[in-house]
Amino acid sequence: MQSMPDASPTKWHRAHTTWFFETFLLEPHLSDYRLYNVEFPYLFNSYYEAVGSRHPRHERGLISRPGTAEIAHYRGHVDEALQRLTESELSLELSDLLILGMHHEQQHQELLCMDALHMLSRHPFRPAYCDHAEDTRKDEPRPQRWLQHEGGLATIGQRHSAPTAQKQFCFDNETPQHQVHLEPFQISDRLITCSEWLEFIDDGGYQRSDLWMSEGWAALAKSEQSAPRYWNRVDARWKVFGLAGERALNLEQPVTNVSWFEADAFARWSDARLPTEAEWELAAGSPPPGAHLNLDVLAPRSAATSPDSQQWFGEVWQWTESSYRPYPGYRPPRGAIGEYNGKFMMNQQVLRGSSYATPAGHARKTYRNFFAPSSNWMFSGLRLARDI
Amino acid sequence: MQSMPDASPTKWHRAHTTWFFETFLLEPHLSDYRLYNVEFPYLFNSYYEAVGSRHPRHERGLISRPGTAEIAHYRGHVDEALQRLTESELSLELSDLLILGMHHEQQHQELLCMDALHMLSRHPFRPAYCDHAEDTRKDEPRPQRWLQHEGGLATIGQRHSAPTAQKQFCFDNETPQHQVHLEPFQISDRLITCSEWLEFIDDGGYQRSDLWMSEGWAALAKSEQSAPRYWNRVDARWKVFGLAGERALNLEQPVTNVSWFEADAFARWSDARLPTEAEWELAAGSPPPGAHLNLDVLAPRSAATSPDSQQWFGEVWQWTESSYRPYPGYRPPRGAIGEYNGKFMMNQQVLRGSSYATPAGHARKTYRNFFAPSSNWMFSGLRLARDI
Amino acid sequence: MQSMPDASPTKWHRAHTTWFFETFLLEPHLSDYRLYNVEFPYLFNSYYEAVGSRHPRHERGLISRPGTAEIAHYRGHVDEALQRLTESELSLELSDLLILGMHHEQQHQELLCMDALHMLSRHPFRPAYCDHAEDTRKDEPRPQRWLQHEGGLATIGQRHSAPTAQKQFCFDNETPQHQVHLEPFQISDRLITCSEWLEFIDDGGYQRSDLWMSEGWAALAKSEQSAPRYWNRVDARWKVFGLAGERALNLEQPVTNVSWFEADAFARWSDARLPTEAEWELAAGSPPPGAHLNLDVLAPRSAATSPDSQQWFGEVWQWTESSYRPYPGYRPPRGAIGEYNGKFMMNQQVLRGSSYATPAGHARKTYRNFFAPSSNWMFSGLRLARDI
Amino acid sequence: MQSMPDASPTKWHRAHTTWFFETFLLEPHLSDYRLYNVEFPYLFNSYYEAVGSRHPRHERGLISRPGTAEIAHYRGHVDEALQRLTESELSLELSDLLILGMHHEQQHQELLCMDALHMLSRHPFRPAYCDHAEDTRKDEPRPQRWLQHEGGLATIGQRHSAPTAQKQFCFDNETPQHQVHLEPFQISDRLITCSEWLEFIDDGGYQRSDLWMSEGWAALAKSEQSAPRYWNRVDARWKVFGLAGERALNLEQPVTNVSWFEADAFARWSDARLPTEAEWELAAGSPPPGAHLNLDVLAPRSAATSPDSQQWFGEVWQWTESSYRPYPGYRPPRGAIGEYNGKFMMNQQVLRGSSYATPAGHARKTYRNFFAPSSNWMFSGLRLARDI
Repeated sequence: MQSMPDASPTKWHRAHTTWFFETFLLEPHLSDYRLYNVEFPYLFNSYYEAVGSRHPRHERGLISRPGTAEIAHYRGHVDEALQRLTESELSLELSDLLILGMHHEQQHQELLCMDALHMLSRHPFRPAYCDHAEDTRKDEPRPQRWLQHEGGLATIGQRHSAPTAQKQFCFDNETPQHQVHLEPFQISDRLITCSEWLEFIDDGGYQRSDLWMSEGWAALAKSEQSAPRYWNRVDARWKVFGLAGERALNLEQPVTNVSWFEADAFARWSDARLPTEAEWELAAGSPPPGAHLNLDVLAPRSAATSPDSQQWFGEVWQWTESSYRPYPGYRPPRGAIGEYNGKFMMNQQVLRGSSYATPAGHARKTYRNFFAPSSNWMFSGLRLARDI
Repeated sequence: MQSMPDASPTKWHRAHTTWFFETFLLEPHLSDYRLYNVEFPYLFNSYYEAVGSRHPRHERGLISRPGTAEIAHYRGHVDEALQRLTESELSLELSDLLILGMHHEQQHQELLCMDALHMLSRHPFRPAYCDHAEDTRKDEPRPQRWLQHEGGLATIGQRHSAPTAQKQFCFDNETPQHQVHLEPFQISDRLITCSEWLEFIDDGGYQRSDLWMSEGWAALAKSEQSAPRYWNRVDARWKVFGLAGERALNLEQPVTNVSWFEADAFARWSDARLPTEAEWELAAGSPPPGAHLNLDVLAPRSAATSPDSQQWFGEVWQWTESSYRPYPGYRPPRGAIGEYNGKFMMNQQVLRGSSYATPAGHARKTYRNFFAPSSNWMFSGLRLARDI
Repeated sequence: MQSMPDASPTKWHRAHTTWFFETFLLEPHLSDYRLYNVEFPYLFNSYYEAVGSRHPRHERGLISRPGTAEIAHYRGHVDEALQRLTESELSLELSDLLILGMHHEQQHQELLCMDALHMLSRHPFRPAYCDHAEDTRKDEPRPQRWLQHEGGLATIGQRHSAPTAQKQFCFDNETPQHQVHLEPFQISDRLITCSEWLEFIDDGGYQRSDLWMSEGWAALAKSEQSAPRYWNRVDARWKVFGLAGERALNLEQPVTNVSWFEADAFARWSDARLPTEAEWELAAGSPPPGAHLNLDVLAPRSAATSPDSQQWFGEVWQWTESSYRPYPGYRPPRGAIGEYNGKFMMNQQVLRGSSYATPAGHARKTYRNFFAPSSNWMFSGLRLARDI
Repeated sequence: MQSMPDASPTKWHRAHTTWFFETFLLEPHLSDYRLYNVEFPYLFNSYYEAVGSRHPRHERGLISRPGTAEIAHYRGHVDEALQRLTESELSLELSDLLILGMHHEQQHQELLCMDALHMLSRHPFRPAYCDHAEDTRKDEPRPQRWLQHEGGLATIGQRHSAPTAQKQFCFDNETPQHQVHLEPFQISDRLITCSEWLEFIDDGGYQRSDLWMSEGWAALAKSEQSAPRYWNRVDARWKVFGLAGERALNLEQPVTNVSWFEADAFARWSDARLPTEAEWELAAGSPPPGAHLNLDVLAPRSAATSPDSQQWFGEVWQWTESSYRPYPGYRPPRGAIGEYNGKFMMNQQVLRGSSYATPAGHARKTYRNFFAPSSNWMFSGLRLARDI
């Protein structure tokens, strides 16, 4: 089931990550490997032009077969072959590809949650993804403070993306390391909360054109949206739909599923702005171990209870001021794998951090996530910044 | 899974026919009946405005829950209650409704096959619905003859639609019986075959604007269609996709899945025309017992092997010249059930006969089926007629 | 300027009717005739596939050149050549074509008014087409009476469409003359008025699904229409936009610019129906001389003041129950001219009579006008009929 | 006439620039001023939310009235009042507004040319805007050289946008002046020519997915474009449509009317990239006096004959690598005038320089023009840059 052109069925995510290993590791590098099914590459290639034609993205919902069971079998087949491949020592190139495949799969683990939430939200009765998740979140407020930064020349990004050699994985779009010049700024030490967002709504935030970019305002008029995507006012009380179903709004929880246009309007209303990605990277701490996908906590936590008290990681992705463009000197890898990130560098905005659905070990300070500024089905929120 | 706005998921068809019994029989007439689930009426009402709001048709594919197993349970619940209802003697009204519910379900049994074929055809690899059906059809040609009719005043239609009283079921749109005046005509004694359709194609039938209604020609230009919907030319050989998968074209099999615009163009090319529904009804025989849905024969048969040698019934529905309008003096039943047929009487063309997927006992000479003239996912073919 | 895909710019109408004479009379029949401009046939062919390719209909608004003055010059060129052609005696064929060309032009004279009204209505301030037309219409009510008809076999239509031979012009779609069988019926002796339409509105006519065909109801929901196209409620008072600008509603004026779906719903609400075209033709009188386009009266008149007291002609076209299909035995003329009417005989409803914008001499009892049932930019109203 | 939603009719441009003076200068600051027509603000407001509601942009083509003559009269009325206003000494604020209004009008003078070209290109026969412009351009080649820049900290932008005080006009989006850090780079000393673009085409540039951003590639597949917008291959020879009509391709003329996606793909194919706007600004010279709109030269000139031999100005706007975002510390002016630039800073790319249709005195080194990366009806070309 595919609830919009940008989302994919759960089954498809699973088959696609399996296909990635098959296509980039097994087929070219395991001598006696035979494709599980010669038709699968057509079905489960996402967007790699260089490895052949593929099923159109917006028609992924039409793939009735193979069924769930057969995809599990496909996964077993590929896992077993990967096992064989890794019995002998891997070349640096192969080792890098294997690690890339695992990070690719982690990305899809999170996307799968975002897509599932969207799909369930389109069901007339909005069933829960997982209703055992108890709502034990404590909504203690935590006042915001501004962290100061003096600006000047700074270094951001990663040196290169060969994980085996440098003992650390990153995507190609985080490279190369380079200098930027910053003006002095301050940045918030926590995320914007639902309580603050309510003030924005109550102050007419969705009705004041002066707060919005022109394109965002036009979209708003068309959609008649007047609150974040999954908010719902029932008998004068706000409810929020999430993976654990529809629940009362938790005021101190970080706001999530807002578009860049919403985040930008909120920041303007706050007499502030979104941070640039460089500012964010300079101010952020490191991902704490506890900030990752946890089926008992299917929603972001308040700053008072988040494992990362400044909420850089593990709650919601954070929109930045920065358009997603290549770093100076960026070169995509050669071959099909070069299509991974490079070709999406237009009409997207960078998000930093990680969300409550990001798998353990996947987050990092230099990570550049990106989505179109009008998208709001992702786990996306914001923190503020200001010039000094 | 919903492969186009006009089609419905298999699961939905099953739940909807169950809902029909629940809504029109059990809820108003079985005193202690309790709805299986108060949300189901919203999900499974098709188009009855008078019984409440409903889920939009084109979003039926989003109903992930209830699942197949729960719908089977729903059916058991309703069957059991119907059993109880029918233990005591039924009023005429109730008995009529029960019979209507059964005919309604039979319609959906056939629609389900049409929709499944469409859905499978949209899968990139076109899997078969049922591949055990062996292709034992004999493709013996049978020359066509013209049946003559002298015209004049004739009577068509059914007296009224109360099945219990008149011991015969019909839908309201077949009433009232009335007179029409016809000019002398002749009508073919069998259906148009794939072999004849190939001649039409080879003679440029899909490229000659003079053969087509303006609207059909414009649609053709847009779709770039140049053969019936499920035909496919592979290496200079024609194949046809059907419930039994993609197979070589059987030349003497009746052509199926053509739109009214295609049928009309073919008739013009043949220097003939489609029959009016009155002409068809006067010339047709009665449905033979063997002409009905048979899982071993998932395709129409040639005139030489059809149980109904003149092929009025049991192969493909037959487009007529007649627009679907009410018969003179037609009155829909009162209440919600009046929405069954009456409100669709515009921009549709009448089809007569029945198809290889029509359930046993469902066909009859006065039956008025109807679809939009551009539709071609139904089991629809044609026979010719001419003025004398 | 083209205000919707179905409408054409005024300039285009003038050039197209000129082109018609050039293409069907001058070019094939005047030996030394030279095209005014070899590019014009491409620009001003409406839909004749057989005479060559053409500019797409929905892009007629892009033809900035030739300008108005050059089109007047084009017309002069063609008029002068027609003069020469008619100096010698014309063959029957040529004479017929000439008469056809004139009736074709008359049709466009009326269409031009309909299109101009639509265009002006889309202007933000709705300027008048001609504001000198004084609103001297007297709105005297005239009670309705039912004209009785006993039904039985009747003859309608015209024998054939060769005007010179039979001294009377008609279009091919009015032929051949043929018999129909009718049940006894009654038909109203005047048109439905705005006053009656207001009652329909006030009784919830646009909110009651039971009154509407399914397709009309769906369109209504989408458009949020709740009154005829050019009606406008300003401060609790109804105004109507017409060629003379926006004016207060005249209660006894026939309602105009309603779609077939609206007319059909109104008839159902009245416990009546629309007449079939055969019923209309049998009951109608003959067009009176005074019922034609008059720049001083740019709106329909009440039954009390109409030159045709039963309002068959000269006020508004009248929707019928009948789908626009060929008469039994109909054959379009050979060649390109056969595209005039025949290829539009699907998904259209027949209208009878004529309107206040129909040119003098153009109306006749057997005339079959036709539009899609959802269209409402034409001068279209209704009268009622009932079974006896 | 409006040939696409983004373009405006010529008449509209003229009325809108007049409205700008009326709204921002006369109405608030000339005490006895009376609006020429109280309805005009609704018709000719482009996008200023703060000054009232307005006619939708994509329906500007429907404004049949006022006509051209009345708009000239409107202009006269406003000019006369401006004359009166400027008789007494102006405050700094008013003086700034007057200068802004003039630069605003200059922008529309150029937009009017771009829109007119688009409109004429949509006419089936592509008439010339001005055919007296003789094609005397000399197509002498000029080899390209790379200008070197060592990078490091650099200053770009303008201090502030109050023209009267600082004796120099600029738009608010060029402020504030700020520092950026650049890596060493080289930038071309002339524009890319049609000859070079032909090589790109001949090398399969429009068929190689690896050269394109994903969004650009998808658009290309949909549009089936395989050359710049106004190029046209006739009998194996390339022609280009411009304001002077369709003419043979001038090989050494700068390529124009390419989208950012095309420019970016070309740069990748050249093993180079587009310059950032900072790089461009640092390398550029000053606009020479002769580089401006000249009705005798309605096309860009070759580097050998351009008044600006390095072609920074006066030929075509030049796409940059930079997304259009606010400079650090940017603040839009208060009030409605703050909507001029600020609210468009998303999903647009910056262009630098000026074109052959830019009015005299309008160009400057810090000027930030911007369009969506898929747009190609503007006079847009490119020059290359590379990392050292």
